This record gives sequence, structure tokens and C-alpha cells, in this order.
Amino acid sequence: MIDFITFCDYMGTFAFAISGIRLASAKQFDWFGAYVVGVVTAVGGGTVRDILLNDTPFWMTQPSYLVVSGFALLFVIIFRKYVIKLNNTFFIFDAIGLGLFVIVGIVKTLDFGFPMWVAVVMGTITGSFGGMIRDILINEVPLILRKDIYALACVFGGIAYWICLQLAMPSALSQFISATIVFGIRILSVKYHISVPVLKGEE
Amino acid sequence: MIDFITFCDYMGTFAFAISGIRLASAKQFDWFGAYVVGVVTAVGGGTVRDILLNDTPFWMTQPSYLVVSGFALLFVIIFRKYVIKLNNTFFIFDAIGLGLFVIVGIVKTLDFGFPMWVAVVMGTITGSFGGMIRDILINEVPLILRKDIYALACVFGGIAYWICLQLAMPSALSQFISATIVFGIRILSVKYHISVPVLKGEE
Amino acid sequence: MIDFITFCDYMGTFAFAISGIRLASAKQFDWFGAYVVGVVTAVGGGTVRDILLNDTPFWMTQPSYLVVSGFALLFVIIFRKYVIKLNNTFFIFDAIGLGLFVIVGIVKTLDFGFPMWVAVVMGTITGSFGGMIRDILINEVPLILRKDIYALACVFGGIAYWICLQLAMPSALSQFISATIVFGIRILSVKYHISVPVLKGEE
Repeated sequence: MIDFITFCDYMGTFAFAISGIRLASAKQFDWFGAYVVGVVTAVGGGTVRDILLNDTPFWMTQPSYLVVSGFALLFVIIFRKYVIKLNNTFFIFDAIGLGLFVIVGIVKTLDFGFPMWVAVVMGTITGSFGGMIRDILINEVPLILRKDIYALACVFGGIAYWICLQLAMPSALSQFISATIVFGIRILSVKYHISVPVLKGEE
Repeated sequence: MIDFITFCDYMGTFAFAISGIRLASAKQFDWFGAYVVGVVTAVGGGTVRDILLNDTPFWMTQPSYLVVSGFALLFVIIFRKYVIKLNNTFFIFDAIGLGLFVIVGIVKTLDFGFPMWVAVVMGTITGSFGGMIRDILINEVPLILRKDIYALACVFGGIAYWICLQLAMPSALSQFISATIVFGIRILSVKYHISVPVLKGEE
Repeated sequence: MIDFITFCDYMGTFAFAISGIRLASAKQFDWFGAYVVGVVTAVGGGTVRDILLNDTPFWMTQPSYLVVSGFALLFVIIFRKYVIKLNNTFFIFDAIGLGLFVIVGIVKTLDFGFPMWVAVVMGTITGSFGGMIRDILINEVPLILRKDIYALACVFGGIAYWICLQLAMPSALSQFISATIVFGIRILSVKYHISVPVLKGEE
């Protein structure tokens, strides 16, 4: 079970890093700059969470996240011509990673003794702030604030976890249901072009 | 007295969130994205302060700040056509909130045992970094760095507090004077178009 | 020896602040805004490092960094016409500061008990994140991610330090060699227009 979760974690990290590296390459970043954007996309959300929780950022305790991001850079460099054909695969990886990251954020925050609403916020931050920092670095308005149900999928996953716990479900099952909901909302919203309404400006 | 301060705190939070939400709506953010920008504008400064002070961010200990920001979103959605007419009201709320946030930042920093100059910096960060992060999120050059006496009003308020303490004034009176100075400088600088000179570039 | 290091620290801080203030002036920032950008450029990298290490940010324990940044602002205001002629001088100062900042970051991280690879990352963050935050504030794509060997010079300096320690060299000598390597790579890469290849985008 640990192995499966670790595998999902690496896949998610890889997909998040790939998304950062690809956007950086579209902006003429050099290899090292693209790597930095990839790493920040992959670990940024969890790092903000850990800073807010006053804990040592998770990637400082083991090098695997930086290594996986390095493989993502190599992958983009070597398979440049094929990367675009793998869009759907990366999207699935990304959605799996998102589900997992949200759960990790929620569980860790509850472990630190915070109430459930803080955990939902932290799960959302874990899942979505990496992409937000990525877009700031490439000097774009963060995509997740304008389009797609992304951060909101994290919120729904968090609420689902809350409900599961209220129903006294075992912790592992609650986590599985919650991650699946994040994953499902993400997939369905993209497939059926469901999005949050744009906030209309003043006349 | 507590009630009055809490009331000012909510009003300030509301006004800060409104400013974030309105700027986000001008950039076609969706509802959730606008809410995120509103929250970050309202709690960003205090969060940076608390991270620098190595304390748990204030909004993680009670949900009222996220709730007030939610009301700000509802307000902008429902009263969209009238929001622009309330510009002056929001401006007053914003200035009151600014005065209060600066004091909260200063008092907390002194409580943590830091010297007065750190407290002045922290008061300024509490008051102005939320707006700075807001402008980064909407991909604009931060307004407070280019125009208006905003952050500088916080600095003057902090220095006033310092002088009050040197004159052995009671703490509550010092806080009131200092907040009033922040508020007054802010109002007067906008009313009379007083601003810091622009730094001339090289030829 | 302490005096020489302190002198380098001030020179580096001055040069970093100057770079922020000059870029801010090109974007029509006011004096106070330019000062903020200068300070953030000078202390931003070390602040991110200290937050990640869960330590009180270094500039909060003594005011010299804010004071030196203030002198940098005065310098740009007073000697505006001559600043551009000092480009080479500032570049040298900046490279010296970079070498020193990297070492400070590495040594501090090792003191906190982290392994060498974390120290290399922290050295790089100390040296390069100030410039990254600067570019975010002036709403540009961070220069160090697109051009020049800057962050990578920090990485090489960190690896050099690692090798020196493996060779059981004394700590002071290792630091000197490592800082010199950062400085040398930086100078040579600019002089001979050596840069990391740009990551080619997809067709």
C-alpha cells in the first residue's frame, strides 16, 4: 500500500514538474530556469503548507522530489517532439497527483491538531499553490484563478473527507473516496467543459 | 472596546477583500479565483508578518476572516451595479482597516520581543503586503510601489507609535493616535493628491 | 577577518539593492517603492532560506541591511547620471556578494543539521531568490531563469564546497575556494557570453 501511494506521489510530482517545465520552455527559459520552475510547481504547494504549519518543508527531508523533477526535465529535453502527444497521459497523472496531494495536505494538517476547515484550506493550498507560483514565475495570470475547476476540486475533496469522517468511515477509505472525488471532478470538469462562472466586472 | 476593535477588523478585512475581488473581476477571474484573491488581499500582510515572526498565521486560528471574505464576494456578485458608487465608503473602510492592521502588526511584534524598528517594518508589512500580493496575482506592477502614500503611511504611523511610547503615553492612547495618523495620512494624501516623487531613471 | 567578511556582506547588499532600485526606477516606481524593491532584492534570498530553515530572518536581528539599502537609494537619487558608468563596478560587487551569500547559506544550513544537498539548494536560494522576487515585483519574467549563469554558479559553488569538505580541507579555505568559484563562474560567463541552452519548446 505504501508503495502504491509512493508511486502516485512520484507520478504526481513528475506530472506537476512537466507542466512547469513545458510552460517555461514556451517562455524561452534556459534548462536550469525550466528546472527551477518544474521543481517549484511540484513542491510549491506543499512548501507553502509546511511553512504555514511551521514544519520543515517536506522536500528538505529527502531528495526524491528534486530528482523526479530532474527526470521530468530530461524527459522534456529528450522526448520534446512526443511530449505534446502525451497530453492526455500527463493530464491523468496530474489529476492523480492532485487527489493525492490534497489528501496529504489534509491528513498532515489534522495531525498538527488544526480543525477540519483549516485542513480543507491546507489541502487546497497543497494541490493548487504550486501551479499558482508557476504562473507567477512565468509572468502570467494564474490559470487556476481564471479557468477550470482545479482549486475547487480540492475544496470538494476536502469536504468529502469531512463528511466521510463524520460518518465514522475508516481513515483509509475516507482518504480513498476523497482523492477519487478530487480526481473525478477534475477529469469530468475538463471533459465536459464545466467551469465556475466568471465574475462579471462593473459597468 | 474589544467589540469596536473587532468591528474595525471585520470592516478592514471586508474592504481589503472587496479591493482584491474587484480587481480580479476586471481580469476575468472566475468566482473562486476572485475569492482567493480577496482572501489573499485581506490576510496576506498578516500572514507574511506571522511567518516572519515564526507564529501560526492569525487566520488559521479562527474562520472569521475567510467568512468575511466570502461575504465580500457575495456582496460584489449581488450588488455589482452599485459597487462603483460605494467607492468612497470602501476607501474609508480600507483606510480604517489599514490603521488597525498596522497597530496589530506593531503590537504583536513588540510582544514577541523585537525592537521597535522591527515592529515598524512589521506594521508596514501587515498593512501593505496583502495589496502587493494581490497585484502580483493579477499580474500588475504593485500599485503601492508606484503610486499613493500607502506603505509610507504605515511607516509614519509606526514612527508615531514609537514617539508616543517614548513620551510614556499609555499604550491604548498611543495605539489610537498611531492608527489615526495612518488613517489621516492616507485620507489626506488621496484627497490632495500628495504622493512620493517618482524615482527618475537613468538617461 | 570578520571585518573583511562584513565588508563584503555590506558591498553585496549594496550592489543587490542597487540592482533592485535601478530596475524599479525604470518602471516609474516612487522613492519608497524603489526602496522596497531594493530591500527585497538584497534580503529576499536569505529571508526565504531562513523561513525554510524555520529561523528568524537574519535582517530582523540587526538593522544594517535596511540601512545599507537606504544608502543605495540615496546613491541612485544623488548620482543618477553617473550610475550607468559604474555598471562594471556594481557587477563586481554583485558577484562578490553572490559568492558570499552562497557560502553564508550553505554554512548556516549545515549548522542546522541538514545534509549537504539541502545546503547546496539553500546556498543557491540565498544567492538567487532575491533577484527572482525583484523581477516578480517589477512584473518581469525572472532574468535568472532565462539568461546568464547565475543560479547555476551558486550550484557549482555549493558542489565545490562539498568536494572541499570531502577532501578534508579546513572550513575557512573551503569557503574561500567555493566563494571564488561562484565569483569566477559569474564573471567568466558574463565576459565570454557563456549561458545555459534555452529549452526548446514543442513544435
